[in-house]
Amino acid sequence: MIVNMKRSASADEIEHVIDRIKECGFQAHVVRGEERTIIGAVGSSGRRSEIEALRAAPGVADVIQISHPFKLVSRQLRSECTVVDVAGVKVGGGDVVIIAGPCSVESREQLLETARSVKASGATMLRGGAYKPRTSPYDFQGLGVEALRFLKEASDETGLPIVTEVMSEADVEDVAQYADMLQVGARNMQNFSLLRKLATVPKPILLKRGPSATVKEWLLAAEYLLAGGNHDVVLCERGIKTFETATRNTLDLAAVALVKELSHLPVLADPSHGTGLRSLVGPMSKAAIAVGADGLIIEVHPCPERALSDGPQSLDLPGFESLMKELGREPVRDVKAA
Amino acid sequence: MIVNMKRSASADEIEHVIDRIKECGFQAHVVRGEERTIIGAVGSSGRRSEIEALRAAPGVADVIQISHPFKLVSRQLRSECTVVDVAGVKVGGGDVVIIAGPCSVESREQLLETARSVKASGATMLRGGAYKPRTSPYDFQGLGVEALRFLKEASDETGLPIVTEVMSEADVEDVAQYADMLQVGARNMQNFSLLRKLATVPKPILLKRGPSATVKEWLLAAEYLLAGGNHDVVLCERGIKTFETATRNTLDLAAVALVKELSHLPVLADPSHGTGLRSLVGPMSKAAIAVGADGLIIEVHPCPERALSDGPQSLDLPGFESLMKELGREPVRDVKAA
Amino acid sequence: MIVNMKRSASADEIEHVIDRIKECGFQAHVVRGEERTIIGAVGSSGRRSEIEALRAAPGVADVIQISHPFKLVSRQLRSECTVVDVAGVKVGGGDVVIIAGPCSVESREQLLETARSVKASGATMLRGGAYKPRTSPYDFQGLGVEALRFLKEASDETGLPIVTEVMSEADVEDVAQYADMLQVGARNMQNFSLLRKLATVPKPILLKRGPSATVKEWLLAAEYLLAGGNHDVVLCERGIKTFETATRNTLDLAAVALVKELSHLPVLADPSHGTGLRSLVGPMSKAAIAVGADGLIIEVHPCPERALSDGPQSLDLPGFESLMKELGREPVRDVKAA
Amino acid sequence: MIVNMKRSASADEIEHVIDRIKECGFQAHVVRGEERTIIGAVGSSGRRSEIEALRAAPGVADVIQISHPFKLVSRQLRSECTVVDVAGVKVGGGDVVIIAGPCSVESREQLLETARSVKASGATMLRGGAYKPRTSPYDFQGLGVEALRFLKEASDETGLPIVTEVMSEADVEDVAQYADMLQVGARNMQNFSLLRKLATVPKPILLKRGPSATVKEWLLAAEYLLAGGNHDVVLCERGIKTFETATRNTLDLAAVALVKELSHLPVLADPSHGTGLRSLVGPMSKAAIAVGADGLIIEVHPCPERALSDGPQSLDLPGFESLMKELGREPVRDVKAA
Repeated sequence: MIVNMKRSASADEIEHVIDRIKECGFQAHVVRGEERTIIGAVGSSGRRSEIEALRAAPGVADVIQISHPFKLVSRQLRSECTVVDVAGVKVGGGDVVIIAGPCSVESREQLLETARSVKASGATMLRGGAYKPRTSPYDFQGLGVEALRFLKEASDETGLPIVTEVMSEADVEDVAQYADMLQVGARNMQNFSLLRKLATVPKPILLKRGPSATVKEWLLAAEYLLAGGNHDVVLCERGIKTFETATRNTLDLAAVALVKELSHLPVLADPSHGTGLRSLVGPMSKAAIAVGADGLIIEVHPCPERALSDGPQSLDLPGFESLMKELGREPVRDVKAA
Repeated sequence: MIVNMKRSASADEIEHVIDRIKECGFQAHVVRGEERTIIGAVGSSGRRSEIEALRAAPGVADVIQISHPFKLVSRQLRSECTVVDVAGVKVGGGDVVIIAGPCSVESREQLLETARSVKASGATMLRGGAYKPRTSPYDFQGLGVEALRFLKEASDETGLPIVTEVMSEADVEDVAQYADMLQVGARNMQNFSLLRKLATVPKPILLKRGPSATVKEWLLAAEYLLAGGNHDVVLCERGIKTFETATRNTLDLAAVALVKELSHLPVLADPSHGTGLRSLVGPMSKAAIAVGADGLIIEVHPCPERALSDGPQSLDLPGFESLMKELGREPVRDVKAA
Repeated sequence: MIVNMKRSASADEIEHVIDRIKECGFQAHVVRGEERTIIGAVGSSGRRSEIEALRAAPGVADVIQISHPFKLVSRQLRSECTVVDVAGVKVGGGDVVIIAGPCSVESREQLLETARSVKASGATMLRGGAYKPRTSPYDFQGLGVEALRFLKEASDETGLPIVTEVMSEADVEDVAQYADMLQVGARNMQNFSLLRKLATVPKPILLKRGPSATVKEWLLAAEYLLAGGNHDVVLCERGIKTFETATRNTLDLAAVALVKELSHLPVLADPSHGTGLRSLVGPMSKAAIAVGADGLIIEVHPCPERALSDGPQSLDLPGFESLMKELGREPVRDVKAA
Repeated sequence: MIVNMKRSASADEIEHVIDRIKECGFQAHVVRGEERTIIGAVGSSGRRSEIEALRAAPGVADVIQISHPFKLVSRQLRSECTVVDVAGVKVGGGDVVIIAGPCSVESREQLLETARSVKASGATMLRGGAYKPRTSPYDFQGLGVEALRFLKEASDETGLPIVTEVMSEADVEDVAQYADMLQVGARNMQNFSLLRKLATVPKPILLKRGPSATVKEWLLAAEYLLAGGNHDVVLCERGIKTFETATRNTLDLAAVALVKELSHLPVLADPSHGTGLRSLVGPMSKAAIAVGADGLIIEVHPCPERALSDGPQSLDLPGFESLMKELGREPVRDVKAA
């Protein structure tokens, strides 16, 4: 880290910062310029957060981080790509994984119909919400454990592993009992209590990027999971909040490529939430694959106009089948044999 | 709500939308223009979310909400201002409430020293984090229950009611036992499981605005609390994420004024997180009061450069005292008598 | 357009709005709900802006636009894609156009070396800045007319048409004399005086999206050009400003797909400015093509670390050659014959 | 500046950077840490932009600016506040300047009526648009020179100096002939050709912040004016683009306080464009004064619902009078004597 002193900093103030840097377990390297002095805090075993607090010391203009604050998720630590095994499906292993299914599990029939169809079209995993984070308390909140059972049944029939969101620490055990991968939704990306709990679960975690999270914050949220003991983490870019209102979010595909540079973890893209518009799901799916995403998660509903959530961004069953063909996925005609 | 049909919509598509509107419990009013047809869904007892899903129906260009989706928090429902009583301190009753204290409770001494000093300077409530949401898992995470006990002791000594953050449903009972007001942090504003739990607690809630939450989303988060039975809700604007990097967040003071128009709930401002820079805390405190905020929440630390969190935005004790004088607060010299 | 009255609107206020709607040349359709009244302003020949001003009339809550405000750029007006001919290169005709070259023209040698190399690698057009919009007045501002002459020489030698930015109305004639396509930079997207001038120039215009422009504002800027008589407009998405700082801008590829839905104009993507990072130019180029962009504009420099502008996002000559191979472009070995 | 080498940087790469730093006129200070090497470029007379380009050199992770890139606008250069004299009205001298008037000059009568009224209410300067930057080419574009004449007449009658926007280099002379202060609109903040031209005009300039401009970019735009010879620059915060849609822009009042720290130039706030909503103009005016703004610029129209632009955010004449009373301004009853 670098402590950038003010032009007006006195010799005493500079001395004080040097002392504090040493106290915190670093070496201090002073570079005196014509205009100002900067002081490098060098070493790997010091207490970084205490150096950051020096921003509040007299004579200090700024404290600048030089190295990344994340460790276990970093590609510097581990150069080969992590492959996460979700009940037999490899995420990050080179193949593009397609996760499809309804936003919410609304009924046994709705889910089974969707599961059979997306399987036939070539999907490799099933999604469906049992617990739904809804902006309004008056909207459909999900069927809970009943939905988990329907998901299990659909998985047993189709062979597709299940991913579903867990919103509450209290539900982690229930969800972990049924799901093959547990999703942390975008609004919970920095629900650190939930992350700490999920770090102890023996199931892979799908960690969505928060709508206002920087790439750095997102990777640090993943760091909570790895630091807590769960190394099976899949990231998912799902769009960020910007001033643009023509789309629901702005899908930040450069972040997908950037995260693959910075981290060894696999990264998916969610073109459904990322755009909010059915007509853009196809183009952005292709773009996400082209940019290097390890997979897609796509909302599919038998009758989007009657969906209890996210209808406008859901593909219908033939729409998903067409998209899979365009993506070069061979439809699987014999579901049983899959 | 209004369903805006595409120019190319067929008579059958228009008919279908009319049928669905009626099915959902609304009356349908059709306005046929030269270019396009729009259909109003009129009535107060229909199922709104099903009309929204019509965005996915054939021939539909858009579905536009006309009225606000929140109810209990709305000033239309209740025109007089809600006054929240926090252990005797009235929030929203006309006086400007000043909540001050350290970002994190770091030790008994640090907290007591701060509490005595801010009390003497005129603060009306004490803040201090026991459970800390930290971007990195390697940063100080708070002292937990021990910190809650220190807070109680400081409150007992100074007479200042306590507000502290609760991050996890699992901690709600512990926190509610000690705190006079429970804070939902910005990153948990849409942690709906936590909100539902807090709706059942017999203590006031301080609900911070999420860094990417619109005013509407913020009010809907408050609606979760009121709909669940807790009407003692205080809102707090603490800055939103924007492209500007010179400040930590962009404190949206217009949102304070707007929320006071839309809702009857009291609203505070947090100039510490809102700016991230000590030198801006004073000017933005004055601006927040001028715009009509019901109070301020300000971070104060005996030695900001040694703070375990948020040092750069913390005032030191004399700095807080000066600010209070500028705000026209008479310092309370006899702490015991207060 | 729809005028949404307040719940508290009086009969007189409603009547007044109806009168004004008629006065402005529209028919008024009144839909009275249980909670509020909405009034549709129907017709195609009324004065829209006067209806918008009704937002300021007593009893009015909001005025909502139903149809798009742009006309000539709209796909509703013209369903087939516009193909813009830039000195023989067709933009929008199905082939992906690759425009490459340095950010700034720095010298005759630098430009000719780059032009020959990108031509050999398969580029179809040459870019290079003669007039540079620089954030700081102390940075290199471009070689001006001298650079235009070098561009012309490079074009004559390689056969590549030239695109270069014009920043000032005063330079339009000079630039139009040399360039095959004139670029409006992102910061000038709403420089309406410049747009009006360019609308009268008999050369194609490349209109970059402003860093804070919505898709709607961008298309309305293009509308200035078409309304003024210049129909040869090529749009270019180059990234928007968001809270993310790991990349220079956030390249909004969904906007590319959306604009192709809304408009008949061709759309390019600029992965260089869109990311600001050389390592992301390749992945985002592929993504842009996958999403349906009609072409790319890429910064290439013989020695990026000595570039007078935008070095960090510039590919070097072998880097561009590699990318072109990855994109499936056959390098052109015999430059003369091209 | 600091060049942050990659962990993997070789000795040769480090050597190369050191050589380049010296070549660019700086001294190189090398700090070798356990994990990585950083190299400070020290000195005040080197070529900064060439150091920035080193970001593209092999082995370099990042180049970090330590000092501010602006000079003449900086408070480091000049610690006392600049006072700009606009035809006798001092901006920045301690008094709060109130500029009021219509968004657009629509007619002689509309302007004179407004001018007389705002003068009587206590305004100190008159605003009014002659050339209007409009998002759509189909909206009212202003009366041009005719409006300038009306402004002059209103100024002569009321004694209020005039500020009006200039959109085009071609109009600078005309506008400078009539106006007492020339406004650069938000969308032209980085129209560097216009800035260069205005740097040579012997009239004060009001420079609005661009909707996506950082504080740094804004100050660098002002630097263009000072570097070109015009030191009479007044800044104006008018709201930035964010994800919030309930207000037209997000008025960034912290930026006002921050700019007053960083620069000696006076700063105004525009609560009309900053919020887009008439009801918020009053509260945000008070907040802007409280935060330390040197003045306000407020849109006022005799009949906002018939305004040709910006009606929803315009105060009517009695509304402005009330606000001025609330701000503690004594209305001026005898206009002639003022």
